[in-house]
Amino acid sequence: MMVQLAAGIDIGGTNIKFGLVDEDGKIHSKDSVPTADFPDPKDLVNTIAEKIGIFLKGKKEAVNSKLIGIGIGAPNSNYFKGTIEFAVNLKWKGVIPLAKYFHDKLNVPAFLTNDAKAAALGEMQFGGAKGMKDFISITLGTGLGSGIVANGKLIYGHDGFAGELGHTIIIQYGRQCSCGRKGCLEQYCSATGIVKTYFEILKSENPHALDALDTNQIDSKYIYEQALSGNEAAFYAFNYTGELLGYALANSVAYTSPQTIFLSGGLAQAGELIFNPTILSFEKNLLPVYKSKSKINILASSLKEDDAAILGAASLIWQQQ
Amino acid sequence: MMVQLAAGIDIGGTNIKFGLVDEDGKIHSKDSVPTADFPDPKDLVNTIAEKIGIFLKGKKEAVNSKLIGIGIGAPNSNYFKGTIEFAVNLKWKGVIPLAKYFHDKLNVPAFLTNDAKAAALGEMQFGGAKGMKDFISITLGTGLGSGIVANGKLIYGHDGFAGELGHTIIIQYGRQCSCGRKGCLEQYCSATGIVKTYFEILKSENPHALDALDTNQIDSKYIYEQALSGNEAAFYAFNYTGELLGYALANSVAYTSPQTIFLSGGLAQAGELIFNPTILSFEKNLLPVYKSKSKINILASSLKEDDAAILGAASLIWQQQ
Repeated sequence: MMVQLAAGIDIGGTNIKFGLVDEDGKIHSKDSVPTADFPDPKDLVNTIAEKIGIFLKGKKEAVNSKLIGIGIGAPNSNYFKGTIEFAVNLKWKGVIPLAKYFHDKLNVPAFLTNDAKAAALGEMQFGGAKGMKDFISITLGTGLGSGIVANGKLIYGHDGFAGELGHTIIIQYGRQCSCGRKGCLEQYCSATGIVKTYFEILKSENPHALDALDTNQIDSKYIYEQALSGNEAAFYAFNYTGELLGYALANSVAYTSPQTIFLSGGLAQAGELIFNPTILSFEKNLLPVYKSKSKINILASSLKEDDAAILGAASLIWQQQ
Repeated sequence: MMVQLAAGIDIGGTNIKFGLVDEDGKIHSKDSVPTADFPDPKDLVNTIAEKIGIFLKGKKEAVNSKLIGIGIGAPNSNYFKGTIEFAVNLKWKGVIPLAKYFHDKLNVPAFLTNDAKAAALGEMQFGGAKGMKDFISITLGTGLGSGIVANGKLIYGHDGFAGELGHTIIIQYGRQCSCGRKGCLEQYCSATGIVKTYFEILKSENPHALDALDTNQIDSKYIYEQALSGNEAAFYAFNYTGELLGYALANSVAYTSPQTIFLSGGLAQAGELIFNPTILSFEKNLLPVYKSKSKINILASSLKEDDAAILGAASLIWQQQ
């Protein structure tokens, strides 16, 4: 029996995860290495290639496994060129032709895209978007990433940089964004955005509220736990975040009229705390024509959070089979 | 010599225009009838079919012409069903299966979409978007219509209603829109939107400024002429309209990363008066990543305003050849 496997590699600021994925989305092997161990990307390529080789060799007697390609999800990726370009969260400086490095090493097709687009591909290949031709996938992590699928294909756009919904301006003259502009969606609707909102709420109640707090220790998970334990400011931070997200998503429907919007990433793990206000605001702000037809659902990604990045990256290969 | 022709029909609130278009975008015959003359859509189908028949017959001795399909641009169109549904600006009530009527009568494929999507197809088939895979076409008429092309295909979306950029909310709690919500883009950036802006400017200068004016006589063309003759309020109305349009278009780039944005329709005919502030604001609000690569142009449609609707509708057929 011959098993075809695609490697899925997820390049994060802290860890690099990878796994071998079959066409049903089963992960046959997975591993993780600290990003900091690889100041030279070529060392990473050698290490991963070695690990893949060992795995495939180990399998040889039982099954005949074949590597058919390498899919990579990474920040600041240029899909068309297969490069990581000026990634501020990685130590690799300048333009890194990572897809070429893997291709040269392993002699199989290698593709690279950003993690949010990989998540959309994973959802379509293995998750809740199977068979859907029009949907949007939103990743609520440190920032807000997105992948838009229309006519059954992921939209890369003219230069590969489509799907930057995190950088649509949602509040004119709003919070300063790292992109240099003000009021971008990801400054509000992301794991870092909700922390800013929480701080603003605390300060509005008491100008010195932050003085007694170790603000570096407060992240979206802390606010989630506070909200669960009845803290009103934390609860309201989720409400405000959901209200803006629902409003933004209602606007996004007017672009591609998706069947479903999937939410994934850390903040989406807060469940009803984030989904309820998001859906409420979405329905309120949706253009009537989209309500009168079939309902547009906002759903949690059906991929396991831990595996989603590997499955998404591997989908870059499986989508093309 | 055999000439294949596609009929392009544009259903407007006042007139219905139609023509026979060859694959190079040459219009071989064109005509127009008043919309009010056809309270029954089947009468319209009979009339147009007859006129097409006469034209094709008249041509028979010289060239062998063949009708290959009927493309229709109309308000409130459902592309997937071929129907016009509850169009408020037409006398035809309820759901009209116009594509089926034409198909039954003429026995060729018949397709129907809204006028803004037809404009995008026309731009791709015969205009400035020839060969482009990713672009957006914006029609600045009574409302603001749009057609988005990604991966070389027009986006209809799950239910056929993609591309309603005119109903993205651009100013929260802004002007009341006919859709029931507030602050929609088309309340600002359209022929009717600029009139509202002009009135607001006049009133802000003098609360009784409108009392002496016959406000029903003031349309976007009047404001254009006023601006040309040095009227500051009119000039500022164009500036404000362009500023908001450029801001909205900068946001829209973050969705599909188009190569070019084309503007057409009445308001786009104002040339530099509308293009200059639009482009200025677009560049100011654009995410840096889109500036660092190739420039995204905002251009006037290259199709003649008079023929654009017929060419666009006929493109529904030519796109599928």
